[in-house]
Amino acid sequence: MSLRQSLLDNISIVLVDTKTPANIGAVARCMMNTGLSRLILVEPPTDRNHEALRLAAGAGAILAAAETYDSLEKAVADHHLVIGTSRHKGKQRKNMRSPRVQAELVVPLLSHNKAAVLFGNEVNGLTNQDLALCHALIAIPSADAFPSLNLSHAVMIVAYELFLAAGAAPSVSQTALAAGADTEQFYRHLQQTLQAIGFLDKEHPERMMLSLRQLFGKARLSSRDIGILQGILSAVDRARGSGNGR
Amino acid sequence: MSLRQSLLDNISIVLVDTKTPANIGAVARCMMNTGLSRLILVEPPTDRNHEALRLAAGAGAILAAAETYDSLEKAVADHHLVIGTSRHKGKQRKNMRSPRVQAELVVPLLSHNKAAVLFGNEVNGLTNQDLALCHALIAIPSADAFPSLNLSHAVMIVAYELFLAAGAAPSVSQTALAAGADTEQFYRHLQQTLQAIGFLDKEHPERMMLSLRQLFGKARLSSRDIGILQGILSAVDRARGSGNGR
Repeated sequence: MSLRQSLLDNISIVLVDTKTPANIGAVARCMMNTGLSRLILVEPPTDRNHEALRLAAGAGAILAAAETYDSLEKAVADHHLVIGTSRHKGKQRKNMRSPRVQAELVVPLLSHNKAAVLFGNEVNGLTNQDLALCHALIAIPSADAFPSLNLSHAVMIVAYELFLAAGAAPSVSQTALAAGADTEQFYRHLQQTLQAIGFLDKEHPERMMLSLRQLFGKARLSSRDIGILQGILSAVDRARGSGNGR
Repeated sequence: MSLRQSLLDNISIVLVDTKTPANIGAVARCMMNTGLSRLILVEPPTDRNHEALRLAAGAGAILAAAETYDSLEKAVADHHLVIGTSRHKGKQRKNMRSPRVQAELVVPLLSHNKAAVLFGNEVNGLTNQDLALCHALIAIPSADAFPSLNLSHAVMIVAYELFLAAGAAPSVSQTALAAGADTEQFYRHLQQTLQAIGFLDKEHPERMMLSLRQLFGKARLSSRDIGILQGILSAVDRARGSGNGR
Protein backbone atom coordinates (compact mmCIF):
# COMPACT_ATOMS: atom_id res chain seq x y z
CA MET A 1 0.00 0.00 0.00
CA SER A 2 1.22 3.51 -0.77
CA LEU A 3 2.06 5.97 1.96
CA ARG A 4 -0.72 8.21 0.71
CA GLN A 5 -3.25 5.41 1.04
CA SER A 6 -2.08 4.43 4.51
CA LEU A 7 -2.59 8.05 5.62
CA LEU A 8 -6.02 8.34 3.98
CA ASP A 9 -7.09 5.08 5.61
CA ASN A 10 -6.91 6.83 8.96
CA ILE A 11 -9.52 9.42 8.02
CA SER A 12 -13.24 8.95 8.71
CA ILE A 13 -15.97 11.09 7.22
CA VAL A 14 -18.73 11.53 9.80
CA LEU A 15 -22.15 12.72 8.62
CA VAL A 16 -24.26 13.96 11.51
CA ASP A 17 -28.06 14.01 11.25
CA THR A 18 -28.08 14.08 7.44
CA LYS A 19 -31.60 14.59 6.08
CA THR A 20 -31.32 13.67 2.39
CA PRO A 21 -30.33 10.11 1.45
CA ALA A 22 -29.08 11.28 -1.95
CA ASN A 23 -26.43 13.37 -0.20
CA ILE A 24 -25.10 10.31 1.60
CA GLY A 25 -24.66 8.56 -1.73
CA ALA A 26 -22.99 11.61 -3.29
CA VAL A 27 -20.62 11.79 -0.30
CA ALA A 28 -19.70 8.10 -0.75
CA ARG A 29 -18.75 8.84 -4.35
CA CYS A 30 -16.59 11.80 -3.29
CA MET A 31 -14.83 9.55 -0.79
CA MET A 32 -14.16 6.91 -3.44
CA ASN A 33 -12.76 9.64 -5.73
CA THR A 34 -10.31 10.73 -3.06
CA GLY A 35 -9.17 7.44 -1.60
CA LEU A 36 -11.25 7.62 1.57
CA SER A 37 -13.22 4.60 2.74
CA ARG A 38 -14.53 4.91 6.29
CA LEU A 39 -17.96 6.50 6.41
CA ILE A 40 -19.73 6.99 9.74
CA LEU A 41 -23.38 8.01 9.97
CA VAL A 42 -24.83 9.53 13.13
CA GLU A 43 -28.63 9.36 13.25
CA PRO A 44 -29.04 8.94 9.49
CA PRO A 45 -32.43 8.78 7.73
CA THR A 46 -33.82 5.25 7.97
CA ASP A 47 -35.00 5.02 4.36
CA ARG A 48 -31.63 5.84 2.90
CA ASN A 49 -30.72 2.84 0.86
CA HIS A 50 -32.23 3.24 -2.57
CA GLU A 51 -31.61 6.92 -3.23
CA ALA A 52 -28.16 6.88 -1.65
CA LEU A 53 -27.05 3.93 -3.75
CA ARG A 54 -28.16 5.58 -6.97
CA LEU A 55 -26.04 8.65 -6.26
CA ALA A 56 -23.07 6.63 -5.01
CA ALA A 57 -22.39 5.59 -8.63
CA GLY A 58 -20.01 2.77 -7.88
CA ALA A 59 -19.20 3.62 -4.30
CA GLY A 60 -21.74 1.13 -2.96
CA ALA A 61 -19.07 -0.68 -0.99
CA ILE A 62 -18.48 2.44 1.12
CA LEU A 63 -22.21 2.69 1.86
CA ALA A 64 -22.43 -1.01 2.68
CA ALA A 65 -19.55 -0.73 5.14
CA ALA A 66 -20.81 2.53 6.70
CA GLU A 67 -21.03 2.45 10.50
CA THR A 68 -24.12 3.85 12.18
CA TYR A 69 -24.30 5.41 15.65
CA ASP A 70 -27.01 7.11 17.63
CA SER A 71 -24.64 9.62 19.18
CA LEU A 72 -21.68 11.60 17.89
CA GLU A 73 -19.68 10.92 21.02
CA LYS A 74 -19.80 7.17 20.41
CA ALA A 75 -19.11 7.67 16.72
CA VAL A 76 -15.81 9.45 17.30
CA ALA A 77 -14.72 7.45 20.33
CA ASP A 78 -11.88 5.64 18.56
CA HIS A 79 -10.53 8.76 16.82
CA HIS A 80 -7.59 10.79 18.04
CA LEU A 81 -8.43 13.98 16.28
CA VAL A 82 -11.95 15.33 15.68
CA ILE A 83 -12.33 18.11 13.14
CA GLY A 84 -15.59 19.99 12.68
CA THR A 85 -16.70 21.87 9.57
CA SER A 86 -18.66 25.06 9.91
CA ARG A 87 -19.39 28.12 7.85
CA HIS A 88 -20.25 30.18 10.89
CA LYS A 89 -17.66 32.29 12.59
CA GLY A 90 -19.16 32.63 16.02
CA LYS A 91 -17.37 33.13 19.31
CA GLN A 92 -17.28 29.42 19.99
CA ARG A 93 -15.59 28.78 16.68
CA LYS A 94 -12.08 29.91 17.14
CA ASN A 95 -9.10 28.11 15.65
CA MET A 96 -10.97 27.86 12.40
CA ARG A 97 -8.74 27.15 9.45
CA SER A 98 -9.14 26.76 5.72
CA PRO A 99 -9.41 23.21 4.34
CA ARG A 100 -5.94 23.55 2.84
CA VAL A 101 -4.21 24.69 6.00
CA GLN A 102 -6.07 22.19 8.14
CA ALA A 103 -5.27 19.33 5.76
CA GLU A 104 -1.59 20.22 5.86
CA LEU A 105 -1.67 20.24 9.64
CA VAL A 106 -3.60 17.01 10.01
CA VAL A 107 -2.00 14.75 7.41
CA PRO A 108 1.39 14.44 9.13
CA LEU A 109 -0.42 13.16 12.22
CA LEU A 110 -2.23 10.41 10.34
CA SER A 111 0.65 7.98 10.35
CA HIS A 112 -0.09 7.29 14.00
CA ASN A 113 -3.58 8.69 14.61
CA LYS A 114 -7.13 8.42 13.37
CA ALA A 115 -8.97 11.61 12.41
CA ALA A 116 -12.72 12.15 12.05
CA VAL A 117 -14.03 15.00 9.92
CA LEU A 118 -17.59 16.00 10.87
CA PHE A 119 -20.28 17.44 8.62
CA GLY A 120 -23.60 18.59 10.06
CA ASN A 121 -27.03 18.47 8.47
CA GLU A 122 -28.06 20.31 5.32
CA VAL A 123 -30.00 23.04 7.08
CA ASN A 124 -28.12 23.98 10.22
CA GLY A 125 -24.72 22.34 10.03
CA LEU A 126 -23.13 21.12 13.25
CA THR A 127 -24.69 22.17 16.55
CA ASN A 128 -22.68 23.89 19.27
CA GLN A 129 -22.86 20.60 21.18
CA ASP A 130 -21.27 18.80 18.23
CA LEU A 131 -18.59 21.48 17.89
CA ALA A 132 -17.70 21.11 21.56
CA LEU A 133 -16.38 17.63 20.72
CA CYS A 134 -14.02 19.01 18.08
CA HIS A 135 -10.29 19.64 18.46
CA ALA A 136 -10.07 21.75 15.33
CA LEU A 137 -12.39 23.46 12.88
CA ILE A 138 -12.53 23.97 9.13
CA ALA A 139 -14.35 26.78 7.33
CA ILE A 140 -14.61 26.37 3.56
CA PRO A 141 -13.96 29.65 1.73
CA SER A 142 -16.99 30.76 -0.29
CA ALA A 143 -18.67 33.85 -1.69
CA ASP A 144 -20.21 36.07 0.97
CA ALA A 145 -23.43 36.38 -1.00
CA PHE A 146 -24.10 32.64 -1.05
CA PRO A 147 -21.83 30.73 1.31
CA SER A 148 -23.99 27.64 1.79
CA LEU A 149 -22.47 24.64 0.01
CA ASN A 150 -24.31 21.46 -0.76
CA LEU A 151 -23.24 18.81 1.76
CA SER A 152 -21.47 16.60 -0.77
CA HIS A 153 -19.67 19.60 -2.28
CA ALA A 154 -18.37 20.54 1.16
CA VAL A 155 -17.13 16.97 1.65
CA MET A 156 -15.57 17.02 -1.83
CA ILE A 157 -13.47 20.09 -1.08
CA VAL A 158 -12.23 18.85 2.27
CA ALA A 159 -11.55 15.36 0.88
CA TYR A 160 -9.74 16.87 -2.12
CA GLU A 161 -7.45 18.89 0.14
CA LEU A 162 -6.75 15.84 2.33
CA PHE A 163 -6.03 13.75 -0.77
CA LEU A 164 -3.59 16.37 -2.08
CA ALA A 165 -1.89 16.84 1.26
CA ALA A 166 -1.52 13.07 1.70
CA GLY A 167 -0.01 12.62 -1.74
CA ALA A 168 3.05 13.84 -3.46
CA ALA A 169 3.09 17.06 -5.45
CA PRO A 170 0.23 17.21 -7.96
CA SER A 171 0.96 15.47 -11.23
CA VAL A 172 2.79 17.75 -13.59
CA SER A 173 3.67 16.76 -17.11
CA GLN A 174 7.30 15.69 -17.44
CA THR A 175 7.76 17.14 -20.90
CA ALA A 176 11.40 17.33 -21.96
CA LEU A 177 12.16 20.84 -23.13
CA ALA A 178 14.37 21.39 -26.12
CA ALA A 179 18.05 22.08 -25.47
CA GLY A 180 19.21 25.65 -26.00
CA ALA A 181 21.43 24.76 -28.95
CA ASP A 182 18.55 23.13 -30.83
CA THR A 183 16.33 26.10 -30.14
CA GLU A 184 18.98 28.49 -31.47
CA GLN A 185 19.38 26.39 -34.59
CA PHE A 186 15.64 26.63 -35.10
CA TYR A 187 15.73 30.42 -34.78
CA ARG A 188 18.56 30.63 -37.33
CA HIS A 189 16.58 28.48 -39.73
CA LEU A 190 13.45 30.56 -39.08
CA GLN A 191 15.32 33.78 -39.83
CA GLN A 192 16.79 32.41 -43.06
CA THR A 193 13.46 31.14 -44.31
CA LEU A 194 11.57 34.29 -43.38
CA GLN A 195 14.15 36.40 -45.15
CA ALA A 196 13.95 34.17 -48.20
CA ILE A 197 10.19 34.59 -48.46
CA GLY A 198 10.41 38.33 -47.92
CA PHE A 199 8.71 38.44 -44.52
CA LEU A 200 11.70 39.85 -42.69
CA ASP A 201 13.41 43.14 -43.38
CA LYS A 202 16.77 42.05 -44.82
CA GLU A 203 18.58 45.00 -43.26
CA HIS A 204 16.94 44.93 -39.86
CA PRO A 205 15.47 41.53 -39.03
CA GLU A 206 16.35 41.82 -35.33
CA ARG A 207 13.18 43.43 -34.05
CA MET A 208 10.77 40.95 -35.60
CA MET A 209 13.05 38.06 -34.65
CA LEU A 210 12.88 39.24 -31.06
CA SER A 211 9.08 39.22 -31.21
CA LEU A 212 9.19 35.69 -32.62
CA ARG A 213 11.60 34.56 -29.91
CA GLN A 214 9.21 35.92 -27.31
CA LEU A 215 6.25 34.26 -29.01
CA PHE A 216 7.89 30.82 -29.15
CA GLY A 217 9.61 31.34 -25.83
CA LYS A 218 6.22 31.53 -24.15
CA ALA A 219 5.48 28.04 -25.50
CA ARG A 220 8.47 26.45 -23.71
CA LEU A 221 9.18 24.34 -26.77
CA SER A 222 9.87 20.64 -26.36
CA SER A 223 12.30 18.70 -28.55
CA ARG A 224 9.32 17.38 -30.44
CA ASP A 225 7.95 20.89 -30.97
CA ILE A 226 11.30 21.97 -32.42
CA GLY A 227 11.22 18.96 -34.74
CA ILE A 228 7.76 19.91 -36.00
CA LEU A 229 8.69 23.54 -36.55
CA GLN A 230 11.93 22.62 -38.38
CA GLY A 231 9.85 20.31 -40.57
CA ILE A 232 7.54 23.18 -41.48
CA LEU A 233 10.49 25.45 -42.34
CA SER A 234 12.01 22.74 -44.55
CA ALA A 235 8.68 22.33 -46.33
CA VAL A 236 8.53 26.09 -46.92
CA ASP A 237 12.11 26.03 -48.24
CA ARG A 238 11.26 23.24 -50.65
CA ALA A 239 8.04 24.88 -51.83
CA ARG A 240 9.92 28.11 -52.46
CA GLY A 241 12.97 26.42 -53.95
CA SER A 242 10.97 24.48 -56.50
CA GLY A 243 9.03 27.64 -57.33
CA ASN A 244 12.29 29.49 -57.97
CA GLY A 245 13.41 26.75 -60.26
CA ARG A 246 16.51 25.96 -58.21
CA MET B 1 -16.67 45.82 -6.91
CA SER B 2 -13.72 43.96 -5.43
CA LEU B 3 -10.72 42.97 -7.52
CA ARG B 4 -11.55 39.32 -6.82
CA GLN B 5 -15.08 39.76 -8.16
CA SER B 6 -13.92 41.61 -11.27
CA LEU B 7 -11.56 38.72 -12.04
CA LEU B 8 -14.21 36.06 -11.40
CA ASP B 9 -16.65 37.94 -13.65
CA ASN B 10 -14.38 37.10 -16.60
CA ILE B 11 -14.76 33.36 -16.10
CA SER B 12 -17.42 31.33 -17.88
CA ILE B 13 -18.34 27.78 -16.97
CA VAL B 14 -19.22 25.91 -20.17
CA LEU B 15 -21.13 22.64 -19.87
CA VAL B 16 -20.96 20.64 -23.09
CA ASP B 17 -23.63 18.06 -23.91
CA THR B 18 -24.70 17.61 -20.29
CA LYS B 19 -27.20 14.75 -19.96
CA THR B 20 -28.68 15.22 -16.48
CA PRO B 21 -30.62 18.42 -15.71
CA ALA B 22 -29.97 18.00 -11.98
CA ASN B 23 -26.25 18.39 -12.64
CA ILE B 24 -26.80 21.74 -14.33
CA GLY B 25 -28.62 22.95 -11.23
CA ALA B 26 -25.92 21.63 -8.93
CA VAL B 27 -23.28 23.39 -11.05
CA ALA B 28 -25.20 26.68 -10.79
CA ARG B 29 -25.12 26.36 -7.01
CA CYS B 30 -21.36 25.72 -7.06
CA MET B 31 -20.90 28.82 -9.18
CA MET B 32 -22.95 30.92 -6.76
CA ASN B 33 -20.84 29.56 -3.87
CA THR B 34 -17.65 30.67 -5.59
CA GLY B 35 -18.61 34.05 -7.05
CA LEU B 36 -19.03 32.87 -10.65
CA SER B 37 -22.03 33.94 -12.69
CA ARG B 38 -21.69 33.24 -16.41
CA LEU B 39 -22.98 29.78 -17.31
CA ILE B 40 -22.90 28.61 -20.93
CA LEU B 41 -24.70 25.47 -22.08
CA VAL B 42 -23.78 23.73 -25.32
CA GLU B 43 -26.49 21.35 -26.53
CA PRO B 44 -28.13 21.00 -23.10
CA PRO B 45 -31.06 18.68 -22.43
CA THR B 46 -34.31 20.37 -23.46
CA ASP B 47 -36.32 19.36 -20.40
CA ARG B 48 -33.88 20.86 -17.95
CA ASN B 49 -35.87 23.43 -16.07
CA HIS B 50 -37.62 21.74 -13.19
CA GLU B 51 -34.94 19.36 -11.95
CA ALA B 52 -32.13 21.88 -12.50
CA LEU B 53 -33.94 24.56 -10.52
CA ARG B 54 -34.53 22.25 -7.59
CA LEU B 55 -30.84 21.46 -7.29
CA ALA B 56 -29.75 25.04 -7.86
CA ALA B 57 -31.02 25.88 -4.37
CA GLY B 58 -31.01 29.65 -4.72
CA ALA B 59 -28.86 29.95 -7.80
CA GLY B 60 -31.86 30.25 -10.11
CA ALA B 61 -30.63 33.58 -11.45
CA ILE B 62 -27.55 31.90 -12.90
CA LEU B 63 -29.75 29.32 -14.64
CA ALA B 64 -32.11 31.99 -15.92
CA ALA B 65 -29.22 33.95 -17.43
CA ALA B 66 -27.48 30.87 -18.88
CA GLU B 67 -26.57 31.20 -22.56
CA THR B 68 -27.28 28.29 -24.89
CA TYR B 69 -25.38 27.40 -28.06
CA ASP B 70 -25.55 24.58 -30.56
CA SER B 71 -21.78 24.44 -31.04
CA LEU B 72 -18.81 24.77 -28.73
CA GLU B 73 -16.92 26.91 -31.22
CA LYS B 74 -19.66 29.54 -31.14
CA ALA B 75 -19.94 29.26 -27.36
CA VAL B 76 -16.29 30.17 -26.78
CA ALA B 77 -15.90 32.65 -29.65
CA ASP B 78 -15.70 35.69 -27.38
CA HIS B 79 -13.28 34.06 -24.92
CA HIS B 80 -9.52 34.58 -25.03
CA LEU B 81 -8.53 31.51 -23.12
CA VAL B 82 -10.27 28.15 -23.39
CA ILE B 83 -9.47 25.56 -20.74
CA GLY B 84 -10.63 21.98 -20.99
CA THR B 85 -11.05 19.53 -18.14
CA SER B 86 -10.20 15.89 -18.65
CA ARG B 87 -9.34 12.94 -16.49
CA HIS B 88 -7.69 11.10 -19.34
CA LYS B 89 -3.99 11.36 -19.87
CA GLY B 90 -3.77 10.27 -23.48
CA LYS B 91 -1.10 11.26 -25.95
CA GLN B 92 -3.22 14.10 -27.23
CA ARG B 93 -3.59 15.61 -23.79
CA LYS B 94 -0.32 17.19 -22.95
CA ASN B 95 0.03 20.48 -21.11
CA MET B 96 -2.33 19.15 -18.51
CA ARG B 97 -2.09 20.87 -15.16
CA SER B 98 -3.72 20.50 -11.77
CA PRO B 99 -6.66 22.82 -10.95
CA ARG B 100 -4.46 24.71 -8.50
CA VAL B 101 -1.58 25.34 -10.88
CA GLN B 102 -3.89 26.19 -13.75
CA ALA B 103 -5.92 28.59 -11.58
CA GLU B 104 -2.75 30.38 -10.52
CA LEU B 105 -1.68 30.71 -14.16
CA VAL B 106 -5.06 31.88 -15.44
CA VAL B 107 -6.19 34.33 -12.78
CA PRO B 108 -3.55 37.00 -13.51
CA LEU B 109 -4.76 37.07 -17.14
CA LEU B 110 -8.37 37.71 -16.15
CA SER B 111 -7.98 41.44 -15.70
CA HIS B 112 -7.89 41.81 -19.49
CA ASN B 113 -9.21 38.53 -20.85
CA LYS B 114 -12.20 36.21 -20.68
CA ALA B 115 -11.62 32.55 -19.87
CA ALA B 116 -13.97 29.64 -20.53
CA VAL B 117 -13.64 26.44 -18.52
CA LEU B 118 -15.16 23.46 -20.31
CA PHE B 119 -16.73 20.37 -18.78
CA GLY B 120 -17.88 17.47 -20.96
CA ASN B 121 -20.80 15.14 -20.45
CA GLU B 122 -21.20 12.77 -17.53
CA VAL B 123 -20.26 9.65 -19.42
CA ASN B 124 -17.41 10.50 -21.74
CA GLY B 125 -16.19 13.96 -20.79
CA LEU B 126 -14.95 16.25 -23.56
CA THR B 127 -14.39 14.78 -27.01
CA ASN B 128 -11.07 15.10 -28.84
CA GLN B 129 -12.80 17.62 -31.09
CA ASP B 130 -13.73 19.70 -28.02
CA LEU B 131 -10.20 19.42 -26.64
CA ALA B 132 -8.76 20.66 -29.92
CA LEU B 133 -10.36 24.05 -29.17
CA CYS B 134 -8.59 24.28 -25.80
CA HIS B 135 -5.47 26.29 -25.05
CA ALA B 136 -4.85 24.56 -21.75
CA LEU B 137 -6.06 21.52 -19.87
CA ILE B 138 -6.92 20.68 -16.28
CA ALA B 139 -6.85 17.21 -14.76
CA ILE B 140 -8.40 16.94 -11.30
CA PRO B 141 -6.31 14.74 -9.02
CA SER B 142 -8.27 11.71 -7.87
CA ALA B 143 -7.81 8.16 -6.68
CA ASP B 144 -6.64 5.77 -9.40
CA ALA B 145 -9.24 3.21 -8.41
CA PHE B 146 -12.19 5.52 -8.98
CA PRO B 147 -11.18 8.70 -10.78
CA SER B 148 -14.58 9.63 -12.20
CA LEU B 149 -16.02 12.66 -10.39
CA ASN B 150 -19.62 13.71 -10.56
CA LEU B 151 -19.89 16.68 -12.95
CA SER B 152 -20.85 19.21 -10.29
CA HIS B 153 -18.06 18.00 -7.99
CA ALA B 154 -15.55 18.54 -10.78
CA VAL B 155 -16.90 22.05 -11.30
CA MET B 156 -16.79 22.66 -7.53
CA ILE B 157 -13.09 21.86 -7.28
CA VAL B 158 -12.07 23.97 -10.27
CA ALA B 159 -14.32 26.86 -9.16
CA TYR B 160 -12.95 26.63 -5.61
CA GLU B 161 -9.36 26.87 -6.87
CA LEU B 162 -10.25 29.83 -9.11
CA PHE B 163 -12.04 31.52 -6.21
CA LEU B 164 -8.98 31.08 -3.97
CA ALA B 165 -6.53 32.19 -6.65
CA ALA B 166 -8.63 35.27 -7.44
CA GLY B 167 -8.71 36.21 -3.78
CA ALA B 168 -4.96 35.96 -3.32
CA ALA B 169 -4.38 39.48 -4.70
CA PRO B 170 -2.71 38.13 -7.81
CA SER B 171 -0.14 40.01 -9.81
CA VAL B 172 -2.01 41.37 -12.77
CA SER B 173 -0.86 40.72 -16.30
CA GLN B 174 -1.57 43.29 -18.97
CA THR B 175 -1.38 40.90 -21.89
CA ALA B 176 -4.40 41.00 -24.19
CA LEU B 177 -4.83 37.50 -25.55
CA ALA B 178 -6.30 36.87 -28.98
CA ALA B 179 -10.03 36.10 -29.05
CA GLY B 180 -11.05 32.52 -29.80
CA ALA B 181 -12.51 33.39 -33.20
CA ASP B 182 -9.23 35.03 -34.33
CA THR B 183 -7.20 32.10 -33.08
CA GLU B 184 -9.43 29.67 -34.96
CA GLN B 185 -9.03 31.73 -38.13
CA PHE B 186 -5.26 31.52 -37.71
CA TYR B 187 -5.43 27.74 -37.36
CA ARG B 188 -7.55 27.48 -40.51
CA HIS B 189 -5.02 29.60 -42.39
CA LEU B 190 -2.14 27.56 -40.97
CA GLN B 191 -3.77 24.32 -42.09
CA GLN B 192 -4.41 25.65 -45.61
CA THR B 193 -0.86 26.90 -46.02
CA LEU B 194 0.73 23.75 -44.61
CA GLN B 195 -1.36 21.63 -46.93
CA ALA B 196 -0.40 23.82 -49.86
CA ILE B 197 3.31 23.39 -49.17
CA GLY B 198 2.91 19.65 -48.67
CA PHE B 199 3.78 19.60 -44.95
CA LEU B 200 0.42 18.21 -43.87
CA ASP B 201 -1.05 14.89 -44.92
CA LYS B 202 -3.96 15.96 -47.14
CA GLU B 203 -6.11 13.04 -46.02
CA HIS B 204 -5.34 13.17 -42.30
CA PRO B 205 -4.15 16.60 -41.21
CA GLU B 206 -5.87 16.33 -37.81
CA ARG B 207 -3.11 14.78 -35.78
CA MET B 208 -0.39 17.22 -36.76
CA MET B 209 -2.84 20.12 -36.45
CA LEU B 210 -3.56 19.01 -32.90
CA SER B 211 0.16 19.02 -32.13
CA LEU B 212 0.41 22.52 -33.58
CA ARG B 213 -2.59 23.67 -31.54
CA GLN B 214 -0.90 22.38 -28.43
CA LEU B 215 2.38 24.02 -29.39
CA PHE B 216 0.83 27.44 -30.01
CA GLY B 217 -1.65 26.94 -27.17
CA LYS B 218 1.26 26.82 -24.76
CA ALA B 219 2.31 30.26 -26.00
CA ARG B 220 -1.02 31.89 -25.02
CA LEU B 221 -0.99 33.92 -28.20
CA SER B 222 -1.73 37.62 -28.01
CA SER B 223 -3.57 39.54 -30.72
CA ARG B 224 -0.18 40.83 -31.84
CA ASP B 225 1.26 37.30 -31.98
CA ILE B 226 -1.65 36.21 -34.18
CA GLY B 227 -0.99 39.19 -36.45
CA ILE B 228 2.67 38.21 -36.81
CA LEU B 229 1.88 34.57 -37.51
CA GLN B 230 -0.80 35.47 -40.06
CA GLY B 231 1.75 37.75 -41.71
CA ILE B 232 4.21 34.86 -41.99
CA LEU B 233 1.55 32.61 -43.49
CA SER B 234 0.63 35.27 -46.04
CA ALA B 235 4.30 35.65 -46.96
CA VAL B 236 4.57 31.89 -47.43
CA ASP B 237 1.43 31.91 -49.57
CA ARG B 238 2.84 34.67 -51.75
CA ALA B 239 6.27 33.03 -52.07
CA ARG B 240 4.63 29.80 -53.08
CA GLY B 241 2.09 31.46 -55.34
CA SER B 242 4.72 33.39 -57.30
CA GLY B 243 6.89 30.31 -57.43
CA ASN B 244 4.07 28.31 -58.89
CA GLY B 245 3.65 30.94 -61.58
CA ARG B 246 0.13 31.88 -60.44
